[in-house]
Amino acid sequence: MIIRLRKDITSQEKKEIIDAVLELKYKPSEVKTQFGAYLVCTGKKEFDIRKIGFMPGVGDVHRVSSQYKLVSRQWKVDNTIIDLGDGVKIKRDELAILAGPCSIESIENAEKTIEHLVKNNIKIMRTMVFKPRSSPYSFRGIGIEGLRTVSGMCKANGIKIISEVMQVSQIEEMADYVDIFQVGARNTQNFNLLDALGEVDKPVLLKRGISGTIEELLQSAEYIFSNGNEKIILCERGIRTFEDAYRNTFDLNAIPILKEKSHLPVVADPSHAIGIRMFVAQMALASVMAGADGILLEVHETPEKAFSDAQQTLQFTDAEHLYECLRKTNALRNEIKYSMTD
Amino acid sequence: MIIRLRKDITSQEKKEIIDAVLELKYKPSEVKTQFGAYLVCTGKKEFDIRKIGFMPGVGDVHRVSSQYKLVSRQWKVDNTIIDLGDGVKIKRDELAILAGPCSIESIENAEKTIEHLVKNNIKIMRTMVFKPRSSPYSFRGIGIEGLRTVSGMCKANGIKIISEVMQVSQIEEMADYVDIFQVGARNTQNFNLLDALGEVDKPVLLKRGISGTIEELLQSAEYIFSNGNEKIILCERGIRTFEDAYRNTFDLNAIPILKEKSHLPVVADPSHAIGIRMFVAQMALASVMAGADGILLEVHETPEKAFSDAQQTLQFTDAEHLYECLRKTNALRNEIKYSMTD
Amino acid sequence: MIIRLRKDITSQEKKEIIDAVLELKYKPSEVKTQFGAYLVCTGKKEFDIRKIGFMPGVGDVHRVSSQYKLVSRQWKVDNTIIDLGDGVKIKRDELAILAGPCSIESIENAEKTIEHLVKNNIKIMRTMVFKPRSSPYSFRGIGIEGLRTVSGMCKANGIKIISEVMQVSQIEEMADYVDIFQVGARNTQNFNLLDALGEVDKPVLLKRGISGTIEELLQSAEYIFSNGNEKIILCERGIRTFEDAYRNTFDLNAIPILKEKSHLPVVADPSHAIGIRMFVAQMALASVMAGADGILLEVHETPEKAFSDAQQTLQFTDAEHLYECLRKTNALRNEIKYSMTD
Amino acid sequence: MIIRLRKDITSQEKKEIIDAVLELKYKPSEVKTQFGAYLVCTGKKEFDIRKIGFMPGVGDVHRVSSQYKLVSRQWKVDNTIIDLGDGVKIKRDELAILAGPCSIESIENAEKTIEHLVKNNIKIMRTMVFKPRSSPYSFRGIGIEGLRTVSGMCKANGIKIISEVMQVSQIEEMADYVDIFQVGARNTQNFNLLDALGEVDKPVLLKRGISGTIEELLQSAEYIFSNGNEKIILCERGIRTFEDAYRNTFDLNAIPILKEKSHLPVVADPSHAIGIRMFVAQMALASVMAGADGILLEVHETPEKAFSDAQQTLQFTDAEHLYECLRKTNALRNEIKYSMTD
Repeated sequence: MIIRLRKDITSQEKKEIIDAVLELKYKPSEVKTQFGAYLVCTGKKEFDIRKIGFMPGVGDVHRVSSQYKLVSRQWKVDNTIIDLGDGVKIKRDELAILAGPCSIESIENAEKTIEHLVKNNIKIMRTMVFKPRSSPYSFRGIGIEGLRTVSGMCKANGIKIISEVMQVSQIEEMADYVDIFQVGARNTQNFNLLDALGEVDKPVLLKRGISGTIEELLQSAEYIFSNGNEKIILCERGIRTFEDAYRNTFDLNAIPILKEKSHLPVVADPSHAIGIRMFVAQMALASVMAGADGILLEVHETPEKAFSDAQQTLQFTDAEHLYECLRKTNALRNEIKYSMTD
Repeated sequence: MIIRLRKDITSQEKKEIIDAVLELKYKPSEVKTQFGAYLVCTGKKEFDIRKIGFMPGVGDVHRVSSQYKLVSRQWKVDNTIIDLGDGVKIKRDELAILAGPCSIESIENAEKTIEHLVKNNIKIMRTMVFKPRSSPYSFRGIGIEGLRTVSGMCKANGIKIISEVMQVSQIEEMADYVDIFQVGARNTQNFNLLDALGEVDKPVLLKRGISGTIEELLQSAEYIFSNGNEKIILCERGIRTFEDAYRNTFDLNAIPILKEKSHLPVVADPSHAIGIRMFVAQMALASVMAGADGILLEVHETPEKAFSDAQQTLQFTDAEHLYECLRKTNALRNEIKYSMTD
Repeated sequence: MIIRLRKDITSQEKKEIIDAVLELKYKPSEVKTQFGAYLVCTGKKEFDIRKIGFMPGVGDVHRVSSQYKLVSRQWKVDNTIIDLGDGVKIKRDELAILAGPCSIESIENAEKTIEHLVKNNIKIMRTMVFKPRSSPYSFRGIGIEGLRTVSGMCKANGIKIISEVMQVSQIEEMADYVDIFQVGARNTQNFNLLDALGEVDKPVLLKRGISGTIEELLQSAEYIFSNGNEKIILCERGIRTFEDAYRNTFDLNAIPILKEKSHLPVVADPSHAIGIRMFVAQMALASVMAGADGILLEVHETPEKAFSDAQQTLQFTDAEHLYECLRKTNALRNEIKYSMTD
Repeated sequence: MIIRLRKDITSQEKKEIIDAVLELKYKPSEVKTQFGAYLVCTGKKEFDIRKIGFMPGVGDVHRVSSQYKLVSRQWKVDNTIIDLGDGVKIKRDELAILAGPCSIESIENAEKTIEHLVKNNIKIMRTMVFKPRSSPYSFRGIGIEGLRTVSGMCKANGIKIISEVMQVSQIEEMADYVDIFQVGARNTQNFNLLDALGEVDKPVLLKRGISGTIEELLQSAEYIFSNGNEKIILCERGIRTFEDAYRNTFDLNAIPILKEKSHLPVVADPSHAIGIRMFVAQMALASVMAGADGILLEVHETPEKAFSDAQQTLQFTDAEHLYECLRKTNALRNEIKYSMTD
C-alpha cells in the first residue's frame, strides 16, 4: 500500500495516519522525494483502504501487490518523463538517442564525438570515464579530470552527459558534471550505491544485471526511489545465457513487460546486447518497435581504434544513417500506438 | 568444401572427382536434392580448390569452414525462396504471415479460422493436429482424420497448410495434406525425423530447440538438406533462460545472425516466444525490424476457450489490426534495406 | 488421484469405479503395467477419497498433487528396484556401475571392454550402437548387426547391456539384445518414443533433457509408466548453462530432489556432465554422496583413440581405481543413511 | 608473465628489470603483498624467459597464459593455506567448517550459536551483520554495533569470525572484529570493493557471482591479490539457471576445476546452493568428495524462527550429525587422495 501525503499535511495528521497503519499490522516506511512524500506500507492483512483514504492529510492511497511499490504502475499510471533541462527529455514519443564511445579516450575523441552529435541533433552523450573491467590489468577510464573537461565542452554545445558511477565516493565529485548517472550491469544490486543515488537530485539510468531478472531490476529501482529520487530510467542491455554466437541475449521481451509493470521510462542498449557491429542497427530498430523510449549506441570516429568494445561500435557515417532510420521507425511506432503504455 | 556437380556429369567424371577428393584425405558425402547434386567433403588439409574446380563435371566449388555446409551462406549467397505454389512464397520482401490456432480443435474452429484468413489475405494456416505435450494426460490433437478434412477446406480457399510432424511414421500419412511440415522445438535434434524429412519434397519449417544454439539449429537443417531436401525454413521461437516473467526468452539477435550465416529464410514465432497475449504485437513488429522473413501467429475466434496456449493467442479483431501494422512495418523495412541479406 | 485396482476386479466393479470417478468430474485413464492395473484420474474437485477407497475392486487410492502421478512418491513410498535378472539389480545399497566406451567401435573394442568389466566385477556394459550426432557427417555407430554380436559375447560373460534407442522402429530389432533401453538427452521429450517404450517389458534409462527441468523429466517418465512399463531409471547427466569451462553443468541437486519426489532409482553420468577426464573421478564420488543409485562411466582401453568423447573417457587402470573408491564411498554412504529415500 | 622479485632487490636492479620488460613490449604492473613483491607483465610477444630469469634481483619467473595471473597455479604450484591464527587454518586435509545463522539476529542468538560451535569443535562462525536484500523494505542486519559485541564473545571462546562486507567504507570499521571478510555473490564484480580489500591484511572469502563464470571469479580474485592481499578463499555457492526446483544450481564441477586452475583454497556453500533444508546434508557431503577445502553452513537454534533463509537452515542437532559425517567423509577423501591438487 502506498499513501501519498498532502503537501500541507500537519505532523499530527501524519502521526494519526502512521498509527492507523500500525494498527493494521502494516510496517510504514516514510519516503520523501523531489516531488512528494509517501508512506510505503508492507503487510498482508486485507482491509478496506478507504479507511485510510478518508483520513486528513492523505492525498491518495493505492494497493500495490508487487514487492516493488513506488516504481509500480499499479500506483502511478502516468508515464514518468525525465526532464534534463533545455528541452531535452526522455519520453516515448520523441525517442531519446544516447550516443558516444564506450569510454572517452581523449579530449580529441570527445571533440569529434560532440561535433558528430551536434550535426545529427543528438542531445545526450555517453561519456564514460570510469570503466568496470573484468581484469585489473585493463584500461580503466580517463577518470574525473577528463569528465570535468568534457563537461565544459558539452555544456558549450548543448549536449547532456550520461556517465557511469561505480562507487558511493564518486557521486559527489561527479555530480556537477553529469546529467544522468549510469549504474552498470555489475552494480545493479550494489545496494549501498543505489541508496546513495537515491539521495541525489539527478536522473539515474539503471542497467539490468548481467543475469538479473525483471523483478530484481524493479526492486533495485525501488531502492533509489525509496531513498528520495524519482528520476529513474530502466535499461535492457542483454542477459547471460548459454548462447555464444553473440555477446549477450538481448531480452526485448523485457521492454513491453517493464513498461507495463512500471511507469518509469525504458531504454535499450543494442550495442552491448548483440555486441557485433554489423547487427547493431537491426536490433536498435527492433527495440523501437518493442516499445523502447530511448536507445544507447556506441559510436566512434574510428571504431577499430577504440580502446574497448571496438567490435560493437558504429562508425559515424553508419550511425548517421541509423539515426535517420530510428526516427522513421519511431514515427511509425507513434502512428501505430500499440498499447496504453506508449 | 562443397562441390556442385553438373547435371550432365558422367559417372566416370564423378568417379574421378571422388578419387581426387579422397586423395586429399577428405571424406566425400554425395547429396542429391530437388535442385541439384553435390559432394560435401569434410577434411582439414589446406589446398588450392581450383584443382577441383577445373575438373570435368564440376559446376562450382566452395570452401565452407563451418560445421554445417549446405545451409551456409559461404557456399550459396542468394537467399533461398520457398515457393508453395499458387504464388504463395516465403521470402523477405513480402513478409509471410502464418496464422491459426495453437491446434485445430474442431471443423467449426477450422472454418472460422479460414474465413478470417481469407478476409485478411493471409495465405498460410497453422493447422496442428498432433500436439507434443509435457503430460501424457493432456489433449494431444485431433489427429490425421481432422487434417484430411481441413486440408480440403483450405484447398478450396487457396490456403496453404503448415502442420507439425512428430515422428517418421506420420510423414507419409500427412504428406498429401500439408504444404509445410513443422518440426517442433522438442524435435529439433530428433535426427531420424530430420533424415526422413530430407527425403520428402515438401518444405520443412524447423524450430530452434528449447535451449538449442544457433549452431545446432543450422546443423539440424544440414541433416534435412544433406538427405535431399533444400526447402527449409528456420524459426526462432524463444529459448529457455532463468527469466520467468514470460514464457521464453525471445532471441531476436538470432534473426540477423541466422540470415547472415545461412541462405535459408528465417521466421519468428512471437506467440510462443513471449507467451502473453498483450505483448505479442510489439514482439511481432520487433521481429520484422530484426529482419524476419515471416511471422507465426496464434489466433482464435475466442482465445479464452482455446484448448491450449489460450493466454498467448490473439482474438481475430486484434490480429487484423496487427496484420496491417506488420505490413506497414515491413514496407518501412524494405525501404530501409539494412543489410545485404535482406 | 491414483486408484490401484485389485487383480481380481470384475468388469462390473471397474465400471462402477469409473462412473464414480466421472461423477466427480475427474477424467480417468486406465493404465496396465507388468505389475498392476491403475486408474489415473485428473481433476480439481476436493472430496473425501475414502468414498472411492471403500468401493469393491479398489486396492488402494492416493491423492497425487503433482502433474506426474504414477512416478510420484506421493503414491508409492517404497523405492523401485530394477531387477535385470541373474542377481543384477539397480538399487541404492549396492551402487550399480554401468561402464563402457561412448560407443562400441569394433568387436575387438567390445572384447577388451568385457574382459575389463569381468575383472572388476562390473555387471552392466554401455553398448551404444546408434549415436545421435549434431552433424550429419559424423560417425553414427556400428548399428544393429554389431549389437547382435556383442550381445552374445556379453551373455557368455554374465554382462547386461544398456544401449541407446533413437526411434520407435529400432525398439523391436533391439529388444532381444539389450537389457536396458537408454533414451538420450535429445529424446527426453520425444513423446512417441516414450509411448512406444511404455509398451515394452524392459527397463528404460531416461536421461534428463539438455535443458530439461526436473519436472519435465518426471513427466516424461510418466509417459513410459502410463503406457504400461514401470521399469524406469532416471539419469542426471548435466544441463546447459552459460558456463563453458566444462561440458555441462552437473546438477547434483537434482539427485536428492528426484529421489524425494519419485520412487524411481536415479543414476548419475559424470562423464558427460563434466566432460573432462581428470575430473570425472571426483564428480563420480560426489554423485554417490549426493545419493545416486548408480554411476554411468565412459571407459576405453585407449581413450585417446576413441571415436567419440575421447576427452572424457577413463583409461582402464584409472577406472579400476575409481571402482574401488566408489565402493568405499558407497559403504560410507550406506553407513550414514542420510534420508528415508536411501 | 610473473616475475617474483627478491627481497633484497636494489632499486637499480628493479629499474633494469622494468626496462627489459618494456623493451619486450610487455606492460609491467608492480604488486606488493604480505608475502612478496612481483611484476605482473601482460603482453603477447614470444621470447626466452630465461633472459629475464637470469637478471639480478629476480627470484623466479613464470609464463602465465590465462587472463588471471597471480591466482593461477601455472605460477604457484603449492596450495595456499589460510592461517587464521591460534591453529585455525583453511586447508584441504582438515576440512574447515564455517557455521552460523544466515545473519546474527541478537546477542542471545550469537550466544547459543557460539555454545553450539564450541561443543562441536567448530572454529569459524558465520557472523553476518550487514545483509544485501533484493527489497529495500527487508531486514538489513544488526550492523556494526552488533559485530563489536559478538566479536568479544567469539574471542573469549576461541572462535574466528567471517562477516560480509558490502562497501569500501565498512572495511575499516569492521577490520578489528572480523577474521575473514566475505564478499557476497552480488559484489563479486564490485571492483572498487575488491581493490580496497586488496589493501587489507585479512583473508577474503570471495563468493562466485550469481551468474558468474569460473574465469570471472578468478579475475575478481586477481583484483584482490594484485592490490596486495594474497589471503583469498574462493567459494562456490550455486549459479542461476532455468531450473526452479531449488534455489540455485550447485555447480560442483567448479570445485575440482578451480582447484586445478588456482592455488587458492575453495570452499562450498551448500545451504545457499540448494536452499532446501532436507537436502543440505547430502550436498555438503558431495562437496567434500568433489574436493572442497571447507563448507559454509547455515545453522540456527530454531530455524523456523530465523529472520532470513529459514528454509535452508539446519537445526543444531541435525547439524551435529552432519559435522560428524563431514569429518568421516573427509577422512575417506584424504585416504583416496584423488588428485595432486588435494
